[in-house]
Amino acid sequence: MNILITNDDGIHAPGLLHLKQALDTIGKTIVVAPDVERSAVGHAITLSDPLRVYEVEKEGKFFGYAVNGMPADCVKLGIKCLIPQKPDIVVSGINMGPNTATNIIYSGTVSAAAEAVIMGVPALALSLTSFHIPEFEFTSKLAVQLVQKVIENGLPEGTLLNVNVPPLKAKDIKGIVITKQGKGRFEEFFDKRVDPTNRVYYWLAGKKMRLDRGDDIDDVVVMQNKVSITPIRYELTDTDMLEKLRAWNISV
Amino acid sequence: MNILITNDDGIHAPGLLHLKQALDTIGKTIVVAPDVERSAVGHAITLSDPLRVYEVEKEGKFFGYAVNGMPADCVKLGIKCLIPQKPDIVVSGINMGPNTATNIIYSGTVSAAAEAVIMGVPALALSLTSFHIPEFEFTSKLAVQLVQKVIENGLPEGTLLNVNVPPLKAKDIKGIVITKQGKGRFEEFFDKRVDPTNRVYYWLAGKKMRLDRGDDIDDVVVMQNKVSITPIRYELTDTDMLEKLRAWNISV
Repeated sequence: MNILITNDDGIHAPGLLHLKQALDTIGKTIVVAPDVERSAVGHAITLSDPLRVYEVEKEGKFFGYAVNGMPADCVKLGIKCLIPQKPDIVVSGINMGPNTATNIIYSGTVSAAAEAVIMGVPALALSLTSFHIPEFEFTSKLAVQLVQKVIENGLPEGTLLNVNVPPLKAKDIKGIVITKQGKGRFEEFFDKRVDPTNRVYYWLAGKKMRLDRGDDIDDVVVMQNKVSITPIRYELTDTDMLEKLRAWNISV
Repeated sequence: MNILITNDDGIHAPGLLHLKQALDTIGKTIVVAPDVERSAVGHAITLSDPLRVYEVEKEGKFFGYAVNGMPADCVKLGIKCLIPQKPDIVVSGINMGPNTATNIIYSGTVSAAAEAVIMGVPALALSLTSFHIPEFEFTSKLAVQLVQKVIENGLPEGTLLNVNVPPLKAKDIKGIVITKQGKGRFEEFFDKRVDPTNRVYYWLAGKKMRLDRGDDIDDVVVMQNKVSITPIRYELTDTDMLEKLRAWNISV
């Protein structure tokens, strides 16, 4: 089994190293990841600049390819140019920080997995729902099982699994729940500051608003110390709105 | 009526100027747009760097605010800090190049409109389906009518209108069709080149694959010289997959 591993925290992130070590036990892994952190880049791709590739070593051995681009670029370039055959699965992570609810659309981690499914390769996005607690052991084990389950069962074309894990030891995880994307989002504000040369700048800040209740919503589930697994696909048409919009009689 | 105008081609793009001139006839417009082109940035936002704002003049008069960030940043910063009251609508465009089918998820133009609807403001994304033919007259007229229709009828929370217009004079436009997002995508490859210092680089290239037929699909419709209007929302859960996934019995 050929497994392409990527992320948005960059090739030197510990979450990627733990993921690779776990998946090395069940297949041939190939790492293609951004050279530096590319968080919150959404589904950005690089069109106006050339991409460059650097071979990265760890402990004297080839570790993976670093790309001066976005997570989605890494998946495209990995599959099209860097690896000898199409991978059986793409695994993106282990991200530090949640990718749940509205945040999914800003996520570089999820966008890498979305790029894979666009290219016809099944994919998983894995996130640890803390920016501070690097507790990768449980998520690494779960990754191994999920890769095996995806290969065994398949996923519908265009669908990926978005997995969010609370940063806890296995014994403290209260279960695994199949969930829907929530509507929670950040209530944002900008911190307006003045730099040492007296120029104004703005810094985005915010606090998560939980807009959902219910035991099958992604961000609610992780708050309950459970793993959330959401099947995601990018079919964006608001089908309920089609008929209503036809009745607007737009004409110029 | 207060109208926030943005784009991903940058504040100096002609499409934005034409759009502003048209919308100035029906409301008070405020431009908040990226300082330079930010195409294909998807739903990227700026978290790790400060944002700066510059006032831009045209012909000796204040024209708008330029931001050193992404289209989604412009909408956030515009609504939260730069304009005195919440706008009645956000209009993003007029983009040069189509934003149809799979391309929607890479689009900075659409992401600006998506950011607006996340913030509870109705929004339109407008694109001219050519990179080369700046035929803004028809699209500007259509923008005026669509803004009026949206204010009159409202849009469901979370839904935006994604509008793609063929680059033709009004008399050559064959109609306006309410459409669904297609599955068409680029069949991509990388052009591998060597720079003057003998280092390898890769350049993304590709050719649009049309995967759909049917007279209500966005990219099919624009090929027929018609305007495509698609209602879009970011509810990403693959609901058909929920039950199947529960049957996988995942446990660690």
